[in-house]
Amino acid sequence: MSQRVRIDLSYDGTDFFGWQKQAAVGQPTVQGTLEACLEQLFGQPVRTLGAGRTDAGVHALHQVMHFDCPKPPKRYKLLSALNSMTPESIAIHRVFYAPTDFHALASSTGKIYRYLVLNRTTPSALRARYSLWERRRLDLDWLNEASSFLVGTHDFKSFQSQGTEVKSTVRQVRKAHWERQSGDLLVFTIEGEGFLKQMVRNIVGTLLEWQQKNRTPGQIKEVLSAQDRSAAGRTAPARGLFLSQVQYPESLDRKCQEI
Amino acid sequence: MSQRVRIDLSYDGTDFFGWQKQAAVGQPTVQGTLEACLEQLFGQPVRTLGAGRTDAGVHALHQVMHFDCPKPPKRYKLLSALNSMTPESIAIHRVFYAPTDFHALASSTGKIYRYLVLNRTTPSALRARYSLWERRRLDLDWLNEASSFLVGTHDFKSFQSQGTEVKSTVRQVRKAHWERQSGDLLVFTIEGEGFLKQMVRNIVGTLLEWQQKNRTPGQIKEVLSAQDRSAAGRTAPARGLFLSQVQYPESLDRKCQEI
Repeated sequence: MSQRVRIDLSYDGTDFFGWQKQAAVGQPTVQGTLEACLEQLFGQPVRTLGAGRTDAGVHALHQVMHFDCPKPPKRYKLLSALNSMTPESIAIHRVFYAPTDFHALASSTGKIYRYLVLNRTTPSALRARYSLWERRRLDLDWLNEASSFLVGTHDFKSFQSQGTEVKSTVRQVRKAHWERQSGDLLVFTIEGEGFLKQMVRNIVGTLLEWQQKNRTPGQIKEVLSAQDRSAAGRTAPARGLFLSQVQYPESLDRKCQEI
Repeated sequence: MSQRVRIDLSYDGTDFFGWQKQAAVGQPTVQGTLEACLEQLFGQPVRTLGAGRTDAGVHALHQVMHFDCPKPPKRYKLLSALNSMTPESIAIHRVFYAPTDFHALASSTGKIYRYLVLNRTTPSALRARYSLWERRRLDLDWLNEASSFLVGTHDFKSFQSQGTEVKSTVRQVRKAHWERQSGDLLVFTIEGEGFLKQMVRNIVGTLLEWQQKNRTPGQIKEVLSAQDRSAAGRTAPARGLFLSQVQYPESLDRKCQEI
């Protein structure tokens, strides 16, 4: 019987066409890159599954994937082998023997995303890859009040982009708040059990646009209740978004044994 | 008479063949890129001069340059015009009317460089562009003791790479110390009135190599006194190095008037 393996990793999404493997040639994806490395290592195709399908240009501080290892994983020193094979924009942090019932996506109980905004009059050459530059002064209190209306279980249809079929657009958001990370750098943190396509970027884009248009924080409630994408604002660029944490039940995390 | 202009800027050096303009086609440099923007803006060639000739791949948090503006600078909204023309890997922070005796290089009284080392067992996808990854555990106390022997006025010939003619290889280093910036990230800060070609990278490379070889911190003194490049260790990669600050006499800084 093959051994299920869990891998925790990070990546710089700038040069990838997202997580999900694509058929198109010349459009490298994170999953496609990793599967090519695994195939080279084991001499046979390996199918992987990721916890979150990040879009083109979106980064991950912590992504999780699993696969069924066709050969005894320990003999392959997977952590260092993969780190030596992947481009430096993908880093493998931990490798585990996972129980057969571990599923990177289905077992996950929640995710945390972060969105970085550089809020100052001039851009930063060294933050450009990893944040949205917003020159107009943002009001953290306004953003936090507006974000508070997103917490809870709501139909987030207004914040869903086209392209992926889902049974329900109702999602539970556990936390949504803004803070000053340092100096001119603001960070939006949102935690929930699951997210719709581009939901975080549509939320950030709408919050920034609504503040710019001098709307009240409470008007975010109207966007939610419209259940219509055209009621919301623009989609914030991918570069500011990070999949920051994938959560699993503690009992399952404990059953994953680091190799 | 033309107006001298001072520009403070930052850049991500990854995709540039250094600061200094080169004749070679297909080798973009920071200075070459900026001069092309200025020429487009003013309709005539503009010659610039930078405070520090950073090498290929080296970043700048704070670089300073000057040029003599062929037309009244104020009418051109230089700050926003240049930021809209440069690639996002170059950011203009401030633009000043400078007195005629301001010279980005000759007026400078010192520079601060920083070198970032990510010290942990696995690499980081999101730090890869901006740090050296060192998996062996580094000893900060050892590094600080060894660095203390560099402070003062010494002949740094052992830490000079070939390629640039200089009258003297004696330089004054005012500060040289290591600290933990956060978690696994170490930062080396070195301040001096001027630096030889690749001096900071040769110092960092030698310190890391000497520690790895279990030499004593005091053996750095032997490297200095050898006055021979072959007595020192390897050159640390460019990606970890940042020109962090260019210093001018306060009286001269005050004469620069922000546009």
